[in-house]
Amino acid sequence: MEKILITGHKNPDTDSICSSIVMEKIAKHFGVNAEAVRLGDLNKETEYVFKYLNKEPQRMIEKVDDGQKLILVDHNEAGQSVENRDNAEILAVIDHHRITDFKTPTPLYYFAKPVGCTATILYEIMTEKKIEISKEDAILLISAISSDTLLLKSPTCTKEDIDAFNELEKIAQIDAKTYALNMLKAGTDISDLTPETIVELDAKLLEEGGKRIIIDQVNAADINDVFSRKDEIEEAMNKEIKDKKLNLFIFVITDIINTNSKIIALGDSTDIVEKAFGQKLDSDNSMMLEGVVSRKKQIVPPIVKNL
Amino acid sequence: MEKILITGHKNPDTDSICSSIVMEKIAKHFGVNAEAVRLGDLNKETEYVFKYLNKEPQRMIEKVDDGQKLILVDHNEAGQSVENRDNAEILAVIDHHRITDFKTPTPLYYFAKPVGCTATILYEIMTEKKIEISKEDAILLISAISSDTLLLKSPTCTKEDIDAFNELEKIAQIDAKTYALNMLKAGTDISDLTPETIVELDAKLLEEGGKRIIIDQVNAADINDVFSRKDEIEEAMNKEIKDKKLNLFIFVITDIINTNSKIIALGDSTDIVEKAFGQKLDSDNSMMLEGVVSRKKQIVPPIVKNL
Repeated sequence: MEKILITGHKNPDTDSICSSIVMEKIAKHFGVNAEAVRLGDLNKETEYVFKYLNKEPQRMIEKVDDGQKLILVDHNEAGQSVENRDNAEILAVIDHHRITDFKTPTPLYYFAKPVGCTATILYEIMTEKKIEISKEDAILLISAISSDTLLLKSPTCTKEDIDAFNELEKIAQIDAKTYALNMLKAGTDISDLTPETIVELDAKLLEEGGKRIIIDQVNAADINDVFSRKDEIEEAMNKEIKDKKLNLFIFVITDIINTNSKIIALGDSTDIVEKAFGQKLDSDNSMMLEGVVSRKKQIVPPIVKNL
Repeated sequence: MEKILITGHKNPDTDSICSSIVMEKIAKHFGVNAEAVRLGDLNKETEYVFKYLNKEPQRMIEKVDDGQKLILVDHNEAGQSVENRDNAEILAVIDHHRITDFKTPTPLYYFAKPVGCTATILYEIMTEKKIEISKEDAILLISAISSDTLLLKSPTCTKEDIDAFNELEKIAQIDAKTYALNMLKAGTDISDLTPETIVELDAKLLEEGGKRIIIDQVNAADINDVFSRKDEIEEAMNKEIKDKKLNLFIFVITDIINTNSKIIALGDSTDIVEKAFGQKLDSDNSMMLEGVVSRKKQIVPPIVKNL
């Protein structure tokens, strides 16, 4: 039987990595010959998960062959997907993002809910279809939910995410909040990364209204841990703007303890940022966004609205 | 509580009308203040359903106010949706079509499966969520499934559709095949309709690859019942092409007894039709398509592939 590949998005985060693995189990439950793959290196937060589980992550790929059958998790936009997706066949999508730049020649399974994390949807599917959730599955899903919702504190977090987290905690038989905080903190350590790596770490490309925009987000226990490296980060951002012909690069440093963010915006269209958030950028290209922690809910919508 | 409107597509067919009504029941089950509406007159097939049930169809609307919250059933493409959708807010979509020309500024519920009919998905949701299916609900859902799958004979028909049909027949306590054949036959009577009405009856607009294409489909117990009116139908098609700036108008007459179709194609891009089906149009602009009954599965994909 032909093998179906399951992938999350490029620059994979903990949800994309962990949900792909759990989705493989769900697909196999329905008799599908599926394999979870990933589109990039693990970030430090996700590394923490696999170290904790003493588990190897899935195989990495960059592009797919023509005609390859795919299941997408945690994304739908073409720009965030595996290379050569246009010539592959998408059988199913499980996602929690807005739908954009997505079209198919034929009908497909598409299951999306406006919840904080793909893993929450997978938890619900497994519960509904009575698929056994192992201790390891539960920890993978808890990791994803904690990552996407900043330990249930992001405005993207819904009742469904909290319910899933609490039920999964029972199955995992761990103190999930302590585990998740350690995981998040592990993810904030970018001290040994080059600025070139940092600006690509969790970069999402947005193509809309004739603009090419990258929004990259990093978490920090203290914003100054990252902001102190502003000069070299800006240099790397400007290189990305040139190489990828971007109109705007927004670098978001999110304080996971105090739940707010500082952004750095560069490019020829920084006026969009000022309009979106109703404040001027400081002379050092930065702007403090109080209470803002969610790219999806608090950054992308005002930006898109002002394109 | 703000009222959420549930709508199917323009030129509503039996699935769009019946699934909207059943979706209202599902939404209310979850405490949502929802109202099914429709975007056009009932066709004769759907009229048969409401006469049989001695029931009034839902209210008709043409456009929605800015900010109106919507649930879409049986479609996702903007061109098939209610007027002013761009300024409304789509909360949820339940559909069984390919995804195209669909985007949202924020995440939403999107539940699609590659099955023959939206009603099949609704049946599955009701079963899973243990929502009571009344005799009337069952007949509405049977009508929709029979309409979309030509009484389970279309290539779009899946095991899920057949299972749903059989289970719903038990709930409805009717001979569902006899009922459905009578319903389909009622739908083929277009003798008292003007050609202008006929070419808009079940017309779906496709905008892709820079082309504007309408594919209109009518069912017939005998193809010649419709084809004998070819001259006046072509005149109406040409008027549509001019008024709506179409590149191609494909009029499909589907024989529901022998399960094949005859098409008439007009416009500046009829070469797409010839490429799509690998045959030349006859000198009278027509082409016989043996075994073809499904617009979605057998007509749209080869057309799209050749754009």
